[in-house]
Amino acid sequence: MRFATIRTEYGTTAARLDGEVLVPLDAADVGELLAAGGEGPGRPRDGAEPVPVAQADFAPVVPRPGKVLCVGLNYRAHILETGRELPEYPTLFAKFADTLMGARDDLVLPSVSERVDWEATPAEAAAAIAGYTVVNDVSMRDWQRRTLQWLQGKMFEHSTPAGPYLVTAGEVEGAADLEVRCEVDGVVMQQSRTSDLLFGPAVIVSYASQAITLQPGDLIATGTPGGVGDARKPPVYLQPGNVLRTWIEGLGECVNRCVAEKTG
Amino acid sequence: MRFATIRTEYGTTAARLDGEVLVPLDAADVGELLAAGGEGPGRPRDGAEPVPVAQADFAPVVPRPGKVLCVGLNYRAHILETGRELPEYPTLFAKFADTLMGARDDLVLPSVSERVDWEATPAEAAAAIAGYTVVNDVSMRDWQRRTLQWLQGKMFEHSTPAGPYLVTAGEVEGAADLEVRCEVDGVVMQQSRTSDLLFGPAVIVSYASQAITLQPGDLIATGTPGGVGDARKPPVYLQPGNVLRTWIEGLGECVNRCVAEKTG
Repeated sequence: MRFATIRTEYGTTAARLDGEVLVPLDAADVGELLAAGGEGPGRPRDGAEPVPVAQADFAPVVPRPGKVLCVGLNYRAHILETGRELPEYPTLFAKFADTLMGARDDLVLPSVSERVDWEATPAEAAAAIAGYTVVNDVSMRDWQRRTLQWLQGKMFEHSTPAGPYLVTAGEVEGAADLEVRCEVDGVVMQQSRTSDLLFGPAVIVSYASQAITLQPGDLIATGTPGGVGDARKPPVYLQPGNVLRTWIEGLGECVNRCVAEKTG
Repeated sequence: MRFATIRTEYGTTAARLDGEVLVPLDAADVGELLAAGGEGPGRPRDGAEPVPVAQADFAPVVPRPGKVLCVGLNYRAHILETGRELPEYPTLFAKFADTLMGARDDLVLPSVSERVDWEATPAEAAAAIAGYTVVNDVSMRDWQRRTLQWLQGKMFEHSTPAGPYLVTAGEVEGAADLEVRCEVDGVVMQQSRTSDLLFGPAVIVSYASQAITLQPGDLIATGTPGGVGDARKPPVYLQPGNVLRTWIEGLGECVNRCVAEKTG
């Protein structure tokens, strides 16, 4: 099954994909649906019409996760090609929920950063794993490199596409071997498979659970493969007018047009 | 004015300190009080008796901040004594709201860490700065050092004392020159003054606001001075039975007894 959070005239609503339409459910978003304990589809929302997918306005699939946990350095081939040894432990960092944006929203390039970069990453919604989605951990590299801690390059509001769907685990066989691809204006920048993950979804959940209790709707970005703009020679960053496409086999795609932040 | 969040038989409540008693207010916690837009004291809660401070059960002063932002490497003398240059930008990292605990709660030492350390830090609640409080950014150094990102040493649940009070800015002159002290079993481990902060509260708020919108109740830990256990020779870590006291002039103190995690 596939669930989405869509924006409507009556506010956001969780919805279930049924062929080419989204059927509104009786929950404000997918986070609420998960918190209500449902693997089930939820009840259809009284009096709400189905929305054709082509007309849907997608919100972040889980708009307000209690925690957004991200894994760095997690693709085996990418780690080895950079000359590093395979790490013993996953590298974890956090994002704020405010960073999330919808799967079709414009990506506003902040005026204070000149190095906005992409990081396609499969993500999972806990707990334990309700399903999988597409995330692009868009990163402001100039801010990220100001100190040793990555947070400040990762905390810009509404900069992290997440969605469009939460796809239940059975549909994609635990997301064990899916192609991951990131394109800028149709040019493939990142391409790998989740089978190359050093720390897979179940391992990450188990590891993090030693320290934290994962709640329904918590989002875990499992890491991005090689091919980010910052590591290219010369480096490439997102520019106004670019279209950023983040596609994962079986999960769908985020397509976000980059626009300059209005200032002054 | 001083506000606290206390646990009662009817759930948590915001309260205002009035001499030696806490007067329950008509809000579930200080976060809700701030979100309601009040610099004012809020209305007293109907039918709720004042609670003597000595009998109060303090919850984290803001139990569910949307964001917990922390500043590392922020005490001038401490940076210089370690031979580093003064940084151009603040080092920011995040904590999850789940990490917070009350000012008098037992600190449960997780069985998976053998290096639990203290970090007394003045903290402020945004936005812009509603007031100041006491935080101890207790850190599991073994987990923190597993990778370059500090998060995993900072993410253990209910490990970060925060409180007891939110003290409005006027009472402590913007927290510009307060003594900060951390004691373990009465031995002073950290002692400094907020006047030694490289990036003061207003600067941090202004800097972070370039990337994020601070919301009422967001918590910012402004950094800890020298004297952490991990940097001592030999290193010292918290042990079951230790009493951790985190005191800031004019703001109050957190006093937390360390207990071993029950396993199996």
